[in-house]
Amino acid sequence: MSTSPFLGELIGTMVLLLLGDGVVANVVLKQTKGNSAGWIVITAGWAFAVTIGVFVAKAFGSVDAHLNPAVTVAFAIATSDYSHVLPYISAQLIGAFLGAVLVWLQYLPHWSTTPDPFDKLACFATGPAIRSTGPNLLSEIVGTLVLILGLAGISSKNLGELAIGVGPYLVGILVWSIGLSLGGSTGYCINPARDFSPRLAHALLPIAGKGSSDWGYAWIPVAGPIIGAIIGGLLIQWYAL
Amino acid sequence: MSTSPFLGELIGTMVLLLLGDGVVANVVLKQTKGNSAGWIVITAGWAFAVTIGVFVAKAFGSVDAHLNPAVTVAFAIATSDYSHVLPYISAQLIGAFLGAVLVWLQYLPHWSTTPDPFDKLACFATGPAIRSTGPNLLSEIVGTLVLILGLAGISSKNLGELAIGVGPYLVGILVWSIGLSLGGSTGYCINPARDFSPRLAHALLPIAGKGSSDWGYAWIPVAGPIIGAIIGGLLIQWYAL
Amino acid sequence: MSTSPFLGELIGTMVLLLLGDGVVANVVLKQTKGNSAGWIVITAGWAFAVTIGVFVAKAFGSVDAHLNPAVTVAFAIATSDYSHVLPYISAQLIGAFLGAVLVWLQYLPHWSTTPDPFDKLACFATGPAIRSTGPNLLSEIVGTLVLILGLAGISSKNLGELAIGVGPYLVGILVWSIGLSLGGSTGYCINPARDFSPRLAHALLPIAGKGSSDWGYAWIPVAGPIIGAIIGGLLIQWYAL
Amino acid sequence: MSTSPFLGELIGTMVLLLLGDGVVANVVLKQTKGNSAGWIVITAGWAFAVTIGVFVAKAFGSVDAHLNPAVTVAFAIATSDYSHVLPYISAQLIGAFLGAVLVWLQYLPHWSTTPDPFDKLACFATGPAIRSTGPNLLSEIVGTLVLILGLAGISSKNLGELAIGVGPYLVGILVWSIGLSLGGSTGYCINPARDFSPRLAHALLPIAGKGSSDWGYAWIPVAGPIIGAIIGGLLIQWYAL
Repeated sequence: MSTSPFLGELIGTMVLLLLGDGVVANVVLKQTKGNSAGWIVITAGWAFAVTIGVFVAKAFGSVDAHLNPAVTVAFAIATSDYSHVLPYISAQLIGAFLGAVLVWLQYLPHWSTTPDPFDKLACFATGPAIRSTGPNLLSEIVGTLVLILGLAGISSKNLGELAIGVGPYLVGILVWSIGLSLGGSTGYCINPARDFSPRLAHALLPIAGKGSSDWGYAWIPVAGPIIGAIIGGLLIQWYAL
Repeated sequence: MSTSPFLGELIGTMVLLLLGDGVVANVVLKQTKGNSAGWIVITAGWAFAVTIGVFVAKAFGSVDAHLNPAVTVAFAIATSDYSHVLPYISAQLIGAFLGAVLVWLQYLPHWSTTPDPFDKLACFATGPAIRSTGPNLLSEIVGTLVLILGLAGISSKNLGELAIGVGPYLVGILVWSIGLSLGGSTGYCINPARDFSPRLAHALLPIAGKGSSDWGYAWIPVAGPIIGAIIGGLLIQWYAL
Repeated sequence: MSTSPFLGELIGTMVLLLLGDGVVANVVLKQTKGNSAGWIVITAGWAFAVTIGVFVAKAFGSVDAHLNPAVTVAFAIATSDYSHVLPYISAQLIGAFLGAVLVWLQYLPHWSTTPDPFDKLACFATGPAIRSTGPNLLSEIVGTLVLILGLAGISSKNLGELAIGVGPYLVGILVWSIGLSLGGSTGYCINPARDFSPRLAHALLPIAGKGSSDWGYAWIPVAGPIIGAIIGGLLIQWYAL
Repeated sequence: MSTSPFLGELIGTMVLLLLGDGVVANVVLKQTKGNSAGWIVITAGWAFAVTIGVFVAKAFGSVDAHLNPAVTVAFAIATSDYSHVLPYISAQLIGAFLGAVLVWLQYLPHWSTTPDPFDKLACFATGPAIRSTGPNLLSEIVGTLVLILGLAGISSKNLGELAIGVGPYLVGILVWSIGLSLGGSTGYCINPARDFSPRLAHALLPIAGKGSSDWGYAWIPVAGPIIGAIIGGLLIQWYAL
């Protein structure tokens, strides 16, 4: 069998969500070894999920290793090359769905021991700390813009070629930074696939004692990152970062 | 549009403050996802804020990526080249102000849910753990001196050229170290722009339920870092580090 | 005396277990300086245990530095070269046993001050958060599969040769990631030698106030990682990662 | 003025102790911003103290950047070159003393607000979790042996030349690992200068409300690391690591 950018984006995003939503499950579900381990664990877990996801995506054939429709959109705008947008986003959405299914399996005995349905939804999709449409949307725009500018900075031609292996680690640090600093308001989705597909998995899977999938909020972690990505992509193009 | 050292310092310092003051807001404001997450989160957040700020500053045209008037002063003294001092510091002050405004927006619903005005000021400016002019000033001098000597060490010609991408990460680790070890007394400002501009933003912005901007303390996180920078710059020059 | 792959695997795995089970002892045993320090300490401790173990294994003659029978099996399948399997696994099992003995000595005064026998067993072998054969086995399969795919990604020929020194660090980050995100269910054994040999040490050593060595569970952290390794090894071979 | 190995060891060890004992002061003293921040903060603080200390030592002229008499002894044995032993150890002892004085100044207002004299001593010297001569000595021997073997691994000729800037970071990770995993019993002195000189500073400085300097324990964090260093140095020599 052969690797391909489509397969790389799919498997990489699957690993991203398995490790990313996995750390939330470890911290939020009851009777886990990481229960209540706090924000440093959540954000470190997502950071390394990105780093490992990028390495796996590259091995399976995606040189770009976007794992995120917002990143794909931003760099399509920046380069005026839209040929990858549909296949990449399709692969990312499928991979994210599969990753969420794996999280459900990884913590299978813990869904019935966790009483609060909101805790279970948090293992799949993001939700706002304080629900307020304008500020929530803005929060996701700002977080995603920092992601795109940070990626532009890390891969900037002004730096020269990064030492091999360092790039995926730095991208993880970038996401750790965004989580620590900007994630307190809406949980830093900054990636439409990271929210939509796991929310769909939450709706479809027979999770013990689950509640609403909160579809009313679902457009914000899609629209916010896409808006942030468009702004970021235009800035990269205008300034030739 | 074209990048430039001025733009790089401005955007880089904006990102530094957005991520740096952002992590304080996440930990200190009420009902955030990172509320009360502790010193490891605060110091990691500031560390990665520096790393990401440096990458972004370089992409937008600042090869130096100082993001800090104390660093600009120290290396001006070390190299006897003062031509960058005024433009860099201007850009840093403007960028830091804009970053603080973004923090206010990022956590907009949380200002009215946080009762203590001191907690709100802490999301903008530093303050002493125990107020005492001499020791507070000394604390900022020592912290900044370690910053300057650490930067001199990381970029020392004795090491040779760093592997590309590693430098900005190590500068983040340096600031993490200073925060963990020396930040317990005055909150390791070690950067006049990091304190003055956000304090001004605090004074000017319509923050819900804000209190005093504590201008009486504001000279210490400016004077301390500048004194530390002068000592550090002279040491670099004398020893040709 | 001369170094060799056998010696490298033995000493490296000894260091891995000394540092890995050591951090569990520090967090779980009573009156230690790290008592109750939480999941971030446990997972960081195991991560750096891997990094340091790999460096030491390489210095003592093992270029591969597997330190884990599952890794040895996976790469034997991937490369169709089974010549290292028996010597490597023998060395790993002996090294892991010696590392566990050193943990017992390192925390010698703390065994009698810790009342709960389960806490003492946790310093040697893994155990499930919720005991349930199918999900526990699946959890170890998934964790090990991520380990193998992550290793394949980090060492992928698509990346080129890693900057020297970066590889062992990234392998530590990979294990940190697995611990943070997937370790909440069964404690991420993902390494048969990491569980079997220390469990044997627990059974044989005169540990003050010890209880059962829980041999009924012992097959899961052997079988799960081996199954995950076989799947991972086949994927590497099929896709030529 | 000119740099030199003596000056490098002195300034580097001063920075090591300022940052290392500084993080203990931040966590242990009352009314600091890092009060009770836990073992992850203590061990991260010491790790980065080592990384920054090494960079500064190299800039000031010490290519070796030992900062630790145990490291100096081990590599003297390993290379059969004892010419550096006396000057390096002298510089390390003086630097460690000065670093401890700076910690006292950095946290000057906090000594009188901290009631327990044991907490104050902990900001200077190490102490055992459970006092027991044999196990305490063994603990320091094992910790130092891991330090020496880890350093041998990181700088092993089997690896090739490390990417520039990566080495001092990895040495920090090594010390982080030892702290997390082996530090729970005696506080991982693993460096005679790190304990003796600050203990002397504790005895001599007019610290508000200080108690005993516990000289009865002081020989263990000197003898243990030296014994560990001798064993480690012989292993490096025998195996030509």
